[in-house]
Amino acid sequence: MTATPTGWSRSDLTNGVRRARPLSWQTPPIAPRRRNARRRGAFTKDDDPVTTSAIQRKLVPTLDFLLFDWLSLNALLERPRYQDHSDETCRALMRAASDIAAGLFEPGNRVSDMEEPYIGPDGEVVLPATTHRAWKAYRSFGLMGASHDDEVGGSQLPRTVDMAIRVLFSAAGPNLLPILLTESNAALILAHGTEQQRRVFALPQVECRWTGTMAMSESQAGSSVADILTQATPDGEEFDKDLLGPRYRIIGEKMWISGAEHTLTENIVHLVLAKIPDTDGTVSAGTGALSLFIVPKFIVGPASEILERNDVALIGLNHKLGNRGIPNTALSFGGREAGPGGPKGALGYLVGRPGEGLAQMFHMMNAARAEIGLLASAIGYAGFAVSLDYAKTRLQGRPRGSRTPTQVPIVEHADVKRMLLAQKSYAEGGIALAMYVAKLLDDQQTGSAEDRRHGGALLDILTPVLKSWPSEWCLEGNSLAIQVLGGAGYTRDFPVEQYWRDQRLNMIHEGTHGIQAIDLLGRKVRLRGGECLTALGATIEGTIRSAREAEFATEADALERAWTSVLETTDKAWASGEAHDALANATPYLQGFGHVVIAWIHLSLALAAKTSTHPEAAGRMAAMDYFFAYELPRVGAWLDVVASHQNLCRDVDAAVL
Amino acid sequence: MTATPTGWSRSDLTNGVRRARPLSWQTPPIAPRRRNARRRGAFTKDDDPVTTSAIQRKLVPTLDFLLFDWLSLNALLERPRYQDHSDETCRALMRAASDIAAGLFEPGNRVSDMEEPYIGPDGEVVLPATTHRAWKAYRSFGLMGASHDDEVGGSQLPRTVDMAIRVLFSAAGPNLLPILLTESNAALILAHGTEQQRRVFALPQVECRWTGTMAMSESQAGSSVADILTQATPDGEEFDKDLLGPRYRIIGEKMWISGAEHTLTENIVHLVLAKIPDTDGTVSAGTGALSLFIVPKFIVGPASEILERNDVALIGLNHKLGNRGIPNTALSFGGREAGPGGPKGALGYLVGRPGEGLAQMFHMMNAARAEIGLLASAIGYAGFAVSLDYAKTRLQGRPRGSRTPTQVPIVEHADVKRMLLAQKSYAEGGIALAMYVAKLLDDQQTGSAEDRRHGGALLDILTPVLKSWPSEWCLEGNSLAIQVLGGAGYTRDFPVEQYWRDQRLNMIHEGTHGIQAIDLLGRKVRLRGGECLTALGATIEGTIRSAREAEFATEADALERAWTSVLETTDKAWASGEAHDALANATPYLQGFGHVVIAWIHLSLALAAKTSTHPEAAGRMAAMDYFFAYELPRVGAWLDVVASHQNLCRDVDAAVL
Repeated sequence: MTATPTGWSRSDLTNGVRRARPLSWQTPPIAPRRRNARRRGAFTKDDDPVTTSAIQRKLVPTLDFLLFDWLSLNALLERPRYQDHSDETCRALMRAASDIAAGLFEPGNRVSDMEEPYIGPDGEVVLPATTHRAWKAYRSFGLMGASHDDEVGGSQLPRTVDMAIRVLFSAAGPNLLPILLTESNAALILAHGTEQQRRVFALPQVECRWTGTMAMSESQAGSSVADILTQATPDGEEFDKDLLGPRYRIIGEKMWISGAEHTLTENIVHLVLAKIPDTDGTVSAGTGALSLFIVPKFIVGPASEILERNDVALIGLNHKLGNRGIPNTALSFGGREAGPGGPKGALGYLVGRPGEGLAQMFHMMNAARAEIGLLASAIGYAGFAVSLDYAKTRLQGRPRGSRTPTQVPIVEHADVKRMLLAQKSYAEGGIALAMYVAKLLDDQQTGSAEDRRHGGALLDILTPVLKSWPSEWCLEGNSLAIQVLGGAGYTRDFPVEQYWRDQRLNMIHEGTHGIQAIDLLGRKVRLRGGECLTALGATIEGTIRSAREAEFATEADALERAWTSVLETTDKAWASGEAHDALANATPYLQGFGHVVIAWIHLSLALAAKTSTHPEAAGRMAAMDYFFAYELPRVGAWLDVVASHQNLCRDVDAAVL
Repeated sequence: MTATPTGWSRSDLTNGVRRARPLSWQTPPIAPRRRNARRRGAFTKDDDPVTTSAIQRKLVPTLDFLLFDWLSLNALLERPRYQDHSDETCRALMRAASDIAAGLFEPGNRVSDMEEPYIGPDGEVVLPATTHRAWKAYRSFGLMGASHDDEVGGSQLPRTVDMAIRVLFSAAGPNLLPILLTESNAALILAHGTEQQRRVFALPQVECRWTGTMAMSESQAGSSVADILTQATPDGEEFDKDLLGPRYRIIGEKMWISGAEHTLTENIVHLVLAKIPDTDGTVSAGTGALSLFIVPKFIVGPASEILERNDVALIGLNHKLGNRGIPNTALSFGGREAGPGGPKGALGYLVGRPGEGLAQMFHMMNAARAEIGLLASAIGYAGFAVSLDYAKTRLQGRPRGSRTPTQVPIVEHADVKRMLLAQKSYAEGGIALAMYVAKLLDDQQTGSAEDRRHGGALLDILTPVLKSWPSEWCLEGNSLAIQVLGGAGYTRDFPVEQYWRDQRLNMIHEGTHGIQAIDLLGRKVRLRGGECLTALGATIEGTIRSAREAEFATEADALERAWTSVLETTDKAWASGEAHDALANATPYLQGFGHVVIAWIHLSLALAAKTSTHPEAAGRMAAMDYFFAYELPRVGAWLDVVASHQNLCRDVDAAVL
């Protein structure tokens, strides 16, 4: 059944597989893990000849600057955890990733948009052949989960390098792969699962043999997760004797599930939030009743071997304005009729304990939010690189007063340079923030106790900023990329229109802007007595001090004023102590806060650039100059409505809208 | 040949019609024009039963307030020109237009997006049946060109009412009709054509029997019109004896021509800018060499009767990200081989005199720019109305601290109300500005000499604002409409994603933002010794005085500060007298200027609302409150870079980008 224009194609497939039978388990030996970083990337020679691209040509040196000249990757690589890696191997990995990204991901990205996923005659979701090829190449490349411990299939690659490689793929083909959620799904199971769950459900994902999803939202429960209706009931009297964890039957419907159906891999691991009814059959309201379950598409044995189809059925594909290559699904769990006396529901295995679901899901959610920030920044960068390339070759107009017969490249016009500098400052600012967050994650594993405490506080407060800021401003950047190309920009002859569409989802999925705003102002700035805000303030003030010493006094003063304003605004917002009052303008607060954080990032980058001989250094100065002249002055308009308790939006009668 | 995924489908059609033969003319009597406003709209009964819609339900009263409570339409209708019209007939026309818009345009708008125009087997551009039905209904409605004089097929309807009706259609189906350019094409010919040209080429457009285009851009000449290469050479020795005007042969290719191929009407009138070579065969550079030609798709006789196909061929369709229902074409003029000894080139008739082309085209261009502002505002309004409707019915979340089992409509959340108020202030501000401009046009025809002089100055300076401001801010509004709907917003289940895509073209076509900015700061503010700026200042100051008397002192002060800042910034920008220096930040100037103009509009609307009992009055207050609290404070960040001569964008070396 193919897609219908009304936006939904309801699948009428009946999976035709038998109901799951009770399983018995033995733990087989797992083959020793031999993969390590030196061998990763070696597979690329078997793939197609690579091409180069405007995006990758520009992006690789940008990331190189961030890694080596800003984040001091060489110093990080001295730490014992990373002994298998050197600056040379990291750079070689980057180059190899860039080749695959340019050769397979970039061409496939447009195809994935034109050939939207649909439900084929056999009931399976059909993705373009180019997507299958890109996935195969990515899988052979072997970098999924490379930052995990050796013992769980990783190769202890620094998260900073892992993040940089992910930027390369994301800029080339944001539509192609369910990488993002697979990585964080595996990470959640590795963090919270039992030894068996880690082996059976996480390792195949780290090996790219399976993919993963986050199955949280329901039609009536989007931002309001407390309203989830999906239920999980113990599967038989011996439900808690299963080697894979306490076994439940899951019944319910989930909505907006990315990557939940495809044939790229032999299995898909859904992490499902559901409620376990009390003994009297009632279900509690609220998020405290949520538990987390591993629900595989195919039920598997103790060696991860495929047994039979679980009762998880695709009930529809959403047709989206962008990011169309990733199937976005509605799923039914336990929709089949039970056989005589047999249990009804999809088989699922509890992770951790009942009631811990939301807390556990936040392990995945926080990672996913950071990755949305990275993805948004990467798409912003792609638009920047393509429009810069166009601007350098497109001839149109002349300098004022000139009467030369030849037109000049449009990059010579001040207004075009303004649009390019804006894009540059948005995309590079976002990527740098994502890399900074990756460095904090590296410190969580290998830093001093003080590093870990301080970094943990920064991670808490920077996550809503990383989720929200690039998704808003790189959308603006992608719009400017269209504007640079003029009429050509709105046609399918160039990729910039697709970037802009792809980008639009990022301000919504994995927690909308409004949700991030409440997380920041409602929770993070007050967490642990304001520890996170204090930690960020200390870090920013350190940069301000260094900037003064490095003759960036003007920028240092501007940033100090802006940060002081953030702190004063935070206090004023919470003056009454009432959330109702404080959060009336949470989104403008998030916007102002985000711009100040990115200004700090740009100043920090300029400090590194000042003493660097890297070819990218001059560009960092221009981006900072732009951001401080054109962007930072916007902050006042956002923060003032918060500080002055502007209550129009809260109090206005909806009837007059 | 159908569309190919690469964005272009090259037509291989050979039109198969003979080369144009020399024509002889007689002027037949034209049937007396009997149509008038009382009969217009009478045809709608024959059309489909109408439906109502969230958009039209909300938009009709909004326009009613603007017409009667703000622009004092009743007073205008007292003027002799409008003697056939009354408040009742105007309201009846609005209702009838709204019914057609809801019943035919809204459903057809989505279809036109899904069924993109393509080149059919017979070489004609195929549009969906729904588009044909909507066009038929619009044609029967009989309002094209209704504001023109009775004697040229119009019915002397006030432009304000005409504009309001156009808003209704534009909000319902921005993709459906080539109305916009047909109206302004006819207006140009009526203004600058000969009596014969008016009868033969303009009247069929006013009667909706033909449509029109503006054929200006070429691949190498987009914003830089001086670089047009299309040439026109006199057609034979007696070329200037043709009754339809001096006859030329046109050879060249045009790009980005909207509505240049379709079968909605039997003929299409292209207005083509081309250069007439000097006697030595050379062509001058610059815009002074441009002349304007009427080049019909089908050559016609003196009673507008179709004779044979002109040598105008479709060479490709652009595939766009939005506004897909309007075919966007590349055209070849004179592409056929000439017969033995026969002339080569498409037949075209000179309008006015050689070298006047660009000035004449600006008659059409200014009208088109105003209509883009109207269209952008209408699309913004559509998104606002749909997202408001959704917000009132979608249940999600609860007030802070509440534990009620029932979720509340999301319109109760402060952040959702913020997004709705923003959209409301953008869309209603844009529509009001468009209506204000229409009122100025009415005054041009019926006002006192002083009204006309003052209004002409305002028209000059407000045109770049009306072209640019709604296209930027209603795009932001359309993005917020998606955000209000959350995940549903990015699916094709709701129209808001299409509005956002449709909107994106408006910041580009008919002169990009950058071009408007140069027009405003480079030309309009200095025109005739600053007359336009002075006229606008006097008008704004009048509103400020009235606001003080009406107890809007806070808003009056804020607007006065902002306007003073605009004037000071203008002076500082031009301090050196060098355009190179003044225009380095022309776009931020345009942005700041635009926000101040819209703040003035909102204050003016609130003044009208204060003494009105109209049900819409309260909404106007809320929109003004929002705009002054959240939007006007943004102005400083834009104007400061202009006033401080921030030269980063002008001077930065493109190599470091």
